[in-house]
Amino acid sequence: MKKNRLSVDEYVKGILKGDRVILSRAITLIESTLSSDQRLAEKVMEGVLPFSGKSIRIGITGVPGVGKSTFIESLGKLLVDGGYRLAVLTIDPSSQKSHGSILGDKTRMESLASDKRAYIRPSPAGATLGGVSARTREAMILCEAAGYNVVLIETVGVGQSEIAVKGMVDFFLLLMLAGAGDELQGIKKGIIEMCDALVVNKADGENMDAARRAKREYSNALHLFPAKENGWVQKILICSALKKSGLEEIWEMIEGYVEKMRKNGFFEINRQEQRINWMHEHIRYLLENRFYNDHVIKEKINFLLPDIKSGQQSAIAKARELVDLFMQNQINTTSS
Amino acid sequence: MKKNRLSVDEYVKGILKGDRVILSRAITLIESTLSSDQRLAEKVMEGVLPFSGKSIRIGITGVPGVGKSTFIESLGKLLVDGGYRLAVLTIDPSSQKSHGSILGDKTRMESLASDKRAYIRPSPAGATLGGVSARTREAMILCEAAGYNVVLIETVGVGQSEIAVKGMVDFFLLLMLAGAGDELQGIKKGIIEMCDALVVNKADGENMDAARRAKREYSNALHLFPAKENGWVQKILICSALKKSGLEEIWEMIEGYVEKMRKNGFFEINRQEQRINWMHEHIRYLLENRFYNDHVIKEKINFLLPDIKSGQQSAIAKARELVDLFMQNQINTTSS
Repeated sequence: MKKNRLSVDEYVKGILKGDRVILSRAITLIESTLSSDQRLAEKVMEGVLPFSGKSIRIGITGVPGVGKSTFIESLGKLLVDGGYRLAVLTIDPSSQKSHGSILGDKTRMESLASDKRAYIRPSPAGATLGGVSARTREAMILCEAAGYNVVLIETVGVGQSEIAVKGMVDFFLLLMLAGAGDELQGIKKGIIEMCDALVVNKADGENMDAARRAKREYSNALHLFPAKENGWVQKILICSALKKSGLEEIWEMIEGYVEKMRKNGFFEINRQEQRINWMHEHIRYLLENRFYNDHVIKEKINFLLPDIKSGQQSAIAKARELVDLFMQNQINTTSS
Repeated sequence: MKKNRLSVDEYVKGILKGDRVILSRAITLIESTLSSDQRLAEKVMEGVLPFSGKSIRIGITGVPGVGKSTFIESLGKLLVDGGYRLAVLTIDPSSQKSHGSILGDKTRMESLASDKRAYIRPSPAGATLGGVSARTREAMILCEAAGYNVVLIETVGVGQSEIAVKGMVDFFLLLMLAGAGDELQGIKKGIIEMCDALVVNKADGENMDAARRAKREYSNALHLFPAKENGWVQKILICSALKKSGLEEIWEMIEGYVEKMRKNGFFEINRQEQRINWMHEHIRYLLENRFYNDHVIKEKINFLLPDIKSGQQSAIAKARELVDLFMQNQINTTSS
């Protein structure tokens, strides 16, 4: 493993000059759960951080089958042709189980994946959602430092990952289909509320009327929500990612949003809040990471589990004992 | 403060003989964020734990206006008249902000609140949801030890608290209204999926037809969900909490559920999983609680916040610094 590691300087310089291989290796480094890798990763992050933050960060969600990959391919093509450098990060919490989506993600967006102006990377699937979110955020920072000025973060739209993504992007887009009720599409109301735009995809051919109708229906439904603090009124658009129609309008809307938020100050306010949340998330992640990776704790938990399961031992008393033991163990480790 | 505290023994004995005043004081004790109170609370929990676990634990959720208070009053009256002793705990995450719901909850269920066979207690509103959930679980244990053999936990049905409650009850009931779409009622699909029964309330007078129609519609919708692992098929019932109709059927269904789950072993499997999650939740709570209550950490965070907000300092590097400082500080505290 050691020989695959570069120095902090090599990572930082490589990333800053846009070296895709080094960027990928840096993202792999931040995914690592080894504490030595984490320390190195953190130094790399420190080095690139001053060169990050200059992209438009966009979250895209929608249930499986809504056409997210095609949408990202088509919008991505439009962006790179327009002179943007695009990074696409995908979060799929389900891949924690299958470990199968990583190749899948790359082959899904074939033409974009082979385009040198774009960089596609499935997000690391961590043990905890906090971990996933923290590392996706870090991957985004690395991509920005490597010169990508639009970052799309894709989630599957059925879990808690949307809340995490909302906490790291400037604009949140929900992709939907016409002809199916919101309930059937499995979209939670909370996700609809947090999105800045709702885009009805597959608005082509026989679907066109249904898409227009859906747009009207969604418009009526969204009127029920109070206006957002930042003064933005949620937009509803239709497009066909397959036929590449409606995509320019979507990008114009996003640009309009960014311009408006920059003017009224909410672009920066949002990013400030995100930075603070980032710190708290990382604190939580580090505390739990250190706790559960402690060998003594691991052993002790395995030992206690049967009795806690059966109720022979009190879950909360043992939790406190474990936390006390962990603290004590820190002391022994440090002083020895 | 000190003079208001009883000894562990006084708390435990008082709770076990069903003293409502001592029960209330014990719940106040577990709500306390003082670490000395927490240690005492934990010993009280240890003392009562062997006498807990013998109630039927029921979660009830539904959006505001669905009639949860009236439902709990009517069902509660039925239960206490049938010889049960009932404890009602309510979780309202919004009360974190207003601090106004505590009196509100009590006056909401007036007749039940004045009934000596029932005990009503709004759940402590903690800083974190994990905290709320941990303490509600502890309040439930205390109520069980005090002899209450049905515990109802009420949530407002719009947030993450349902997931927390699902993790501490045997049966989860969702209260709905007829005539409004699921989306309009603000119920998330995930909440519908996790409920064991869906009850359409206000099935009376002119509403009767709409309630029956809603029952049919919900039945069709629920058929889309896969059968649960425990072999239970989600039930849909109608009732009028105001007119006190349909409540016997609801209670029979819950009894049927408990009987079935006891027979097929899932009652105990579910409780075993809940105990393990309880331990992990409490570990997380303790780690964060100790971290954020550390005076040095508090001061340092306040000092760092402006630079993290502005992006001058790296959120993750500072998070690690803070966690390192916290560990170091533990050592100093312990060794001095």
